[in-house]
Amino acid sequence: MRKEELDPFFYPKAIAVIGASREENKPGHVIFRILLENRRKGILKAAVYGVNPKADTILGEKVYKSVSELPPGVDLGVVVVPARFVPSVLEEMGRKGIRAAIVISAGFSEVGRKDLEEELAETARKHGIRVLGPNCIGVFSPWSGVDTVFLPYHKTLSDGRKVLSTPRPGKGHVALLSQSGAVGTAALDYMAGEGIGLSHFVSFGNKVDVDEAELIEYLEDDEATRVILLYIENVKEGRRFVEAASKTSLKKPVIALKAGRTEAGSRAAASHTAAVAGVDAIYEAAFRRSGVIRAYDLQELFDYAKAFVKQPPPPGPRVGIITDGGGAGVMATDMAELSGLKVPELKGGAREELERLKKKGVFPEFSQLGNPVDLTGSATTEMFVEALKVLISSDEVDGIVVLALHQVPGIPDPVDLARRIGEIAESSRKPVLAVDTGWSEAAVLERRVFEELGVPAYPIPERAVKALAALYRYGVYLSKRGVFEEYVENFMEWRASKK
Amino acid sequence: MRKEELDPFFYPKAIAVIGASREENKPGHVIFRILLENRRKGILKAAVYGVNPKADTILGEKVYKSVSELPPGVDLGVVVVPARFVPSVLEEMGRKGIRAAIVISAGFSEVGRKDLEEELAETARKHGIRVLGPNCIGVFSPWSGVDTVFLPYHKTLSDGRKVLSTPRPGKGHVALLSQSGAVGTAALDYMAGEGIGLSHFVSFGNKVDVDEAELIEYLEDDEATRVILLYIENVKEGRRFVEAASKTSLKKPVIALKAGRTEAGSRAAASHTAAVAGVDAIYEAAFRRSGVIRAYDLQELFDYAKAFVKQPPPPGPRVGIITDGGGAGVMATDMAELSGLKVPELKGGAREELERLKKKGVFPEFSQLGNPVDLTGSATTEMFVEALKVLISSDEVDGIVVLALHQVPGIPDPVDLARRIGEIAESSRKPVLAVDTGWSEAAVLERRVFEELGVPAYPIPERAVKALAALYRYGVYLSKRGVFEEYVENFMEWRASKK
Repeated sequence: MRKEELDPFFYPKAIAVIGASREENKPGHVIFRILLENRRKGILKAAVYGVNPKADTILGEKVYKSVSELPPGVDLGVVVVPARFVPSVLEEMGRKGIRAAIVISAGFSEVGRKDLEEELAETARKHGIRVLGPNCIGVFSPWSGVDTVFLPYHKTLSDGRKVLSTPRPGKGHVALLSQSGAVGTAALDYMAGEGIGLSHFVSFGNKVDVDEAELIEYLEDDEATRVILLYIENVKEGRRFVEAASKTSLKKPVIALKAGRTEAGSRAAASHTAAVAGVDAIYEAAFRRSGVIRAYDLQELFDYAKAFVKQPPPPGPRVGIITDGGGAGVMATDMAELSGLKVPELKGGAREELERLKKKGVFPEFSQLGNPVDLTGSATTEMFVEALKVLISSDEVDGIVVLALHQVPGIPDPVDLARRIGEIAESSRKPVLAVDTGWSEAAVLERRVFEELGVPAYPIPERAVKALAALYRYGVYLSKRGVFEEYVENFMEWRASKK
Repeated sequence: MRKEELDPFFYPKAIAVIGASREENKPGHVIFRILLENRRKGILKAAVYGVNPKADTILGEKVYKSVSELPPGVDLGVVVVPARFVPSVLEEMGRKGIRAAIVISAGFSEVGRKDLEEELAETARKHGIRVLGPNCIGVFSPWSGVDTVFLPYHKTLSDGRKVLSTPRPGKGHVALLSQSGAVGTAALDYMAGEGIGLSHFVSFGNKVDVDEAELIEYLEDDEATRVILLYIENVKEGRRFVEAASKTSLKKPVIALKAGRTEAGSRAAASHTAAVAGVDAIYEAAFRRSGVIRAYDLQELFDYAKAFVKQPPPPGPRVGIITDGGGAGVMATDMAELSGLKVPELKGGAREELERLKKKGVFPEFSQLGNPVDLTGSATTEMFVEALKVLISSDEVDGIVVLALHQVPGIPDPVDLARRIGEIAESSRKPVLAVDTGWSEAAVLERRVFEELGVPAYPIPERAVKALAALYRYGVYLSKRGVFEEYVENFMEWRASKK
């Protein structure tokens, strides 16, 4: 992988939309419009040109009759012409010296036209053009303003209401690589709603050239990216994938959602992408060997992403749980044990310190301090703060889950609670994750403030615990490779630099 | 269980709040205030009286010095006095002829005061008083307006913002029985946000008298209740529980979330409720025997509740999947197979009919009709409608999951799509569940309209599939007991009557 070759996909200097269209709902129109808008808003620095043999202007912009007429300097072509014209477009691009193509067009191997796909690949190779796609959605990079997601932000319902339909997540540090375009856009919608910031979204479709392995390699050195998410149904070359993932995962977590786990799912995948999904156990082993953390559905994928981008892995499996709801503590404990973590009964210095505070009247008379630290319904914000301080400085736990159900009377201001917990967690090398259950304004606000301060927050206990367990598995891998300390050091430095 | 004995908890004629308080944040104040408000709004038909020896009026209402001074006709006492006074309050209630008590007060066995709890139980038995609690939150019944949840709806943040904090779900047909008060209120918040309507919420705390078994029996004949949810950490009398659940589950689904599954979780439960959680396998077996469907976290509990209250169980394990996102179809297929369902390749009449429609140009050229029925990104609302009709009338599938990702251009109006799918599903005896991924306005609206029309809708494919698998397990149980047809008949009739 030569970095310069892939740079134009993410940080282009000038973009040509080949197949820019006047028809409002066509991909060639939507892409051209969004890129022009991003340029007008100053989000996109690259120049934007349209190519359409039958038009003089589109959206008030002059368009070019052919690729050869384009001004010099174009380094990225977004190809949105019917499949049969794609090879000749690439030919023209090659002659013009444009060395990166996002081929949006469908109608290749996914519909049995292997021949056309081979012709495309051949032409690209001849000219040294790097290709994303075909049959893909391309790239959305909030940092550079590249956006080839050809689905408009809004839809207008038949009653006239205009509703947000395909939102784009804001700037962030999570990259999302998706083999499926539909899963990709659905995932963007999900991510935007969960408030997870994006570095780059890449839909690579039939991956005739650039594939997941090369993208992972590229993102290893991408400044904007801290965590790499992957949705795949198959891997083209297992060995290359393992090589790339093994190398990258020492520096940045790679989290994969691999669909087609079962026989029937694998059959469905084959009819979807004409790809053999292969035996799941082989993927499982490959992921394990290369330090790739596996998620089993979209919810896990993004729950883990939040945790990994905000918190370091714990040095061990021991979780401390602080709660004002005994039942929530029990559920968290169950899930911890079921997912490979431990909830040790506190016996040493931490327990002594907690008991001392209880005697002083800091904790309620009937609080249970053995772990879970159950502050009961009489809990106050202050108690959460004190308990967290003790657990953070204790050598009896490696990570902490704070279950701060906002309903209790002693938390008059859930935002204030989140802020105070967040401020303490900020400097902790032990991961701290939080939970508040429900969808009331108070719950949503509490979780949002937690996340603004770097504490990933979840609406049910089990999701937080599973995310911590995934962090722990990653830490175990890093330790085996002898880079745990180095990773944590780098992570803490990076996190501090983002404040 | 004598029904009349428990009626006053849910449908009282006159309520006395014993320990009504002037201090704004005290439970005795919040409960009194909310009951008075519900009465003023006409939601609560029962009369409401306060008892406080030291006050003449509270909130502008005359209060009584003692229980004995109360007017006649009170059939429910809500007891909010310090623990040590509870036995004497029950004594007074007994003499006054009040035969139902919700004891909110804490400070009994959960803090080691078994003696006080025994005294309470003894007094209640002597007078034939039925007791909910102690150490509980009591009852919230949106249908009758009873509400002893002593947490105010709103909190006022330190910056002056008033935010919704403990919302109450609206009227509906799902009952929630919770051993834990905190889990209960957190669950109410969750339920309200998910738009799941409630029949009754009961927090039964230390269950010195009325327990989960008796409540299940009671709700079997409750008109408002169609599905019973249970959060428990232990069961007092296994045999009675199995008897009650076995009987009720033939008529209404009982879904249980039992915490304390692991050894550590069990230890946590013991310190929470002083209850021995017991070996999980015993619970698992008891649930199985009595037809209780098990959920493993709050998300599953409510995902299942939605499905069970809106859809009948499928007659078999075969799922038909319709999608416009191939990847979503693959993920749904995986989860179906992993959770005991089947995704058979369509080969008979359904396939023929689908292929015929494709030839007619109703489906896209490259659609895959084998199951998942993948309509591809070229899908339109019309195609979903046509595919659903074929699957509903086919004998090759028993239940249907519609994955209608709203982003594609061919769904200009996701609300219209949901409405059309919902209208077809309405009369189907096969369960239909839906998915649209994400949190954009379009996704949220599409799911809401689906649910208004009786199709449970989820934000990721796996959650819908797991809910269908739970419905299937319930159907298998009903078949074994020979009441499948009868249940479905009753359910369909009930559902139709609710339109």
